[in-house]
Amino acid sequence: MKKLFAEFFGTYWLVFGGCGSAIFAAGYPNLGIGFAGVALAFGLTVLTMAYAVGHISGGHFNPAVSFGLWAGGRFPAKDLIPYIISQCIGAIAAAGTLFIIWTGKAGNAINNTQAGAFASNGYGAFSPDGYSLPAAFIAEFVLTLFFLLIILGATDKFANTSFCGIVIGLGLTLIHLISIPITNTSVNPARSLSQAVFAGGEPLSQVWLFWAAPILGAIVGGFIYKSLLQNHAEA
Amino acid sequence: MKKLFAEFFGTYWLVFGGCGSAIFAAGYPNLGIGFAGVALAFGLTVLTMAYAVGHISGGHFNPAVSFGLWAGGRFPAKDLIPYIISQCIGAIAAAGTLFIIWTGKAGNAINNTQAGAFASNGYGAFSPDGYSLPAAFIAEFVLTLFFLLIILGATDKFANTSFCGIVIGLGLTLIHLISIPITNTSVNPARSLSQAVFAGGEPLSQVWLFWAAPILGAIVGGFIYKSLLQNHAEA
Amino acid sequence: MKKLFAEFFGTYWLVFGGCGSAIFAAGYPNLGIGFAGVALAFGLTVLTMAYAVGHISGGHFNPAVSFGLWAGGRFPAKDLIPYIISQCIGAIAAAGTLFIIWTGKAGNAINNTQAGAFASNGYGAFSPDGYSLPAAFIAEFVLTLFFLLIILGATDKFANTSFCGIVIGLGLTLIHLISIPITNTSVNPARSLSQAVFAGGEPLSQVWLFWAAPILGAIVGGFIYKSLLQNHAEA
Amino acid sequence: MKKLFAEFFGTYWLVFGGCGSAIFAAGYPNLGIGFAGVALAFGLTVLTMAYAVGHISGGHFNPAVSFGLWAGGRFPAKDLIPYIISQCIGAIAAAGTLFIIWTGKAGNAINNTQAGAFASNGYGAFSPDGYSLPAAFIAEFVLTLFFLLIILGATDKFANTSFCGIVIGLGLTLIHLISIPITNTSVNPARSLSQAVFAGGEPLSQVWLFWAAPILGAIVGGFIYKSLLQNHAEA
Repeated sequence: MKKLFAEFFGTYWLVFGGCGSAIFAAGYPNLGIGFAGVALAFGLTVLTMAYAVGHISGGHFNPAVSFGLWAGGRFPAKDLIPYIISQCIGAIAAAGTLFIIWTGKAGNAINNTQAGAFASNGYGAFSPDGYSLPAAFIAEFVLTLFFLLIILGATDKFANTSFCGIVIGLGLTLIHLISIPITNTSVNPARSLSQAVFAGGEPLSQVWLFWAAPILGAIVGGFIYKSLLQNHAEA
Repeated sequence: MKKLFAEFFGTYWLVFGGCGSAIFAAGYPNLGIGFAGVALAFGLTVLTMAYAVGHISGGHFNPAVSFGLWAGGRFPAKDLIPYIISQCIGAIAAAGTLFIIWTGKAGNAINNTQAGAFASNGYGAFSPDGYSLPAAFIAEFVLTLFFLLIILGATDKFANTSFCGIVIGLGLTLIHLISIPITNTSVNPARSLSQAVFAGGEPLSQVWLFWAAPILGAIVGGFIYKSLLQNHAEA
Repeated sequence: MKKLFAEFFGTYWLVFGGCGSAIFAAGYPNLGIGFAGVALAFGLTVLTMAYAVGHISGGHFNPAVSFGLWAGGRFPAKDLIPYIISQCIGAIAAAGTLFIIWTGKAGNAINNTQAGAFASNGYGAFSPDGYSLPAAFIAEFVLTLFFLLIILGATDKFANTSFCGIVIGLGLTLIHLISIPITNTSVNPARSLSQAVFAGGEPLSQVWLFWAAPILGAIVGGFIYKSLLQNHAEA
Repeated sequence: MKKLFAEFFGTYWLVFGGCGSAIFAAGYPNLGIGFAGVALAFGLTVLTMAYAVGHISGGHFNPAVSFGLWAGGRFPAKDLIPYIISQCIGAIAAAGTLFIIWTGKAGNAINNTQAGAFASNGYGAFSPDGYSLPAAFIAEFVLTLFFLLIILGATDKFANTSFCGIVIGLGLTLIHLISIPITNTSVNPARSLSQAVFAGGEPLSQVWLFWAAPILGAIVGGFIYKSLLQNHAEA
């Protein structure tokens, strides 16, 4: 049960901090944090929670990561569903809190005909920079695949694992530095779902891609690490 | 006594570095550091002092943190008052130094009818981006609550605690990346008091919220960590 | 064989993340990550892969680094060719993926008459800020020389080597913070080759400098560390 | 002798990276790294060299740091002069290399009637944002004092010293985030001297302040740490 609380709070923080920085601070005139600030924020949500509650739940905060760790042989199949439910509840609770705070400014309302509304993910007309569905799919697939290589490598028993929270967190920062213009960056189905639920409309219709591509990429990443990179000797 | 000196110097540095970067460097034309630079500066004040004097006093530098650690069962009630007094004296001394340096440029004077004057915190008309009192309260409450989850988790005997200074410092950076537009970001009553004392006027009238919300959030965070997340087994 | 896979994936990620952030996100209007974001991205590709697969291959991801480690007495000559081939294949595969994603936006096509096209390196008219061939050569030479001092020092048996992935990664960030305007920053022949292959034209004609200067600088750096700085006593 | 080489290379890198990023990349149109990027660059020069050659010389790279460590009882007086000479030679060699590269762009020449020319430090009319001599002196004094508290604290035998290179490097980043607009940030007499030698004119006439204030601040910082904060018990 502590594990599920840890995943709830961790995913809440990922969405509150990552999507929150995008919603409140990215586009502030002159002084705003821009995409680089949002990238840093997403990474720091994972970095902080990995050290805070990673020792409790392993610190996934992301359904694709749970799938990828399962594919890599590091996570039991029976825990997939409870972890993913906790993650989605945490993400939606965070999006709700963001909505309450954000509408505390006069005039703020979600315009779901715009790319990136309420930090939602999208492709085609809903890609921040107009990238097509196939381009968006490939980007999310490749990025989540490498995210899992990083996670599995940095937590390998032959690696210097005490740094894994820094490495994985900054890996998520890197992923955002590359791809916010392409899809507003998901690599995390829970984070995509929570923002789409509040945005509704086309962003909600497109949320399937941000479940399919990251989970597929994560599973392939898990298999690649296990079969091509992992040393199967005893430590 | 060394503990109180450590809290004095640590909180001095937090205000001098965090508020100083906002006052001197955030809005410099073209080359200014913006909100992201200020966020980084606040985090680095804590990161540096956590490793420099954390081994002396525990490195709170923040009355809300002292309250939250007490609520989490990690800090004795009898030390609350001396720690908080040291923190407030350090913060005010730093704000005074900033005032002396800043008025060393011809024409610089505090205009306390403007949001964020002398890096003060505020809500409503004194929120940098016009967020209401309830929105400001919720934001400060949630952010300080999670700040305590991070602090208590990263210093848990089951966690990889040698990284805690990095984690807690960058956690404060993250908090600023999210919320400077909302309240100019407090989560620290001493930091709010020191700037309000020099700004006076409405910023000083609003300082109550930046004691109430962070301390309340920190206490709730302390109880949540202790009751829902902490493993009570012996290490 | 695992070593060559590790170098393949690591160099793929270096190019995908570093050049990708430059191509997709650097110049996005208002919110783009700029040169500082690209510098961070390049560094984080190395930081993440150093902890993920460094325990497998040593984590070079760069032919100049392989040469410099050989010059410093840390890498056997017989492994140079296979490592460099893996690195170049990984880099070109990444550039191909970037090309596919990037052309998924209507209107995107490489204009190889422009400095920095498709994140290519260049000097003279192809230097982002118009630096001459000798200036470009000196910059690439000095920067790679120091990159090797950092790598050899941070992995020295007398050093605190567990941090080396952070140090080397952030060293690459620093190198980019200095020199993107000069050459678009190489210090890595594989990264230069992959972008030049896709850009063709003048960027491809100039790629020789980004093999010659970094490899020469790396070899000199290796000799300097070994002869002037290294302690030859047993640990 | 290895110690003096280490100080030479470390200070060369500090000036080449820190001042170089300011000269080449800070003001590049639209994509430039700004003051925040320069702040990061200065910090990363120290972070990287601390792990690379800190195990050889202790990693001062700064005459004020050498004085402060002496005042704090951590560095023998007899080594002060050789260390400072190595640091100044390294700094000037780096400034010379920067000058050669920078003048490799047509039209580049130092205009020493402008504040911050060739990354020089200054006050009054030569302060980037017009701060007076007393304000500049206080800022440099306070910042170097705290830099020494950070250095002495992070390397204290009771502290978690393996992180000291990160802490001290990012401490220098923080110092720059605060104070580039005030003095272009020195806290390092060697770095000020090297740029002033090439700039000449008024920047050279003002260099005395950037020896006096940092060294005085460092010595006071050393005494404060030793007398108020240090635990004199055996570890």
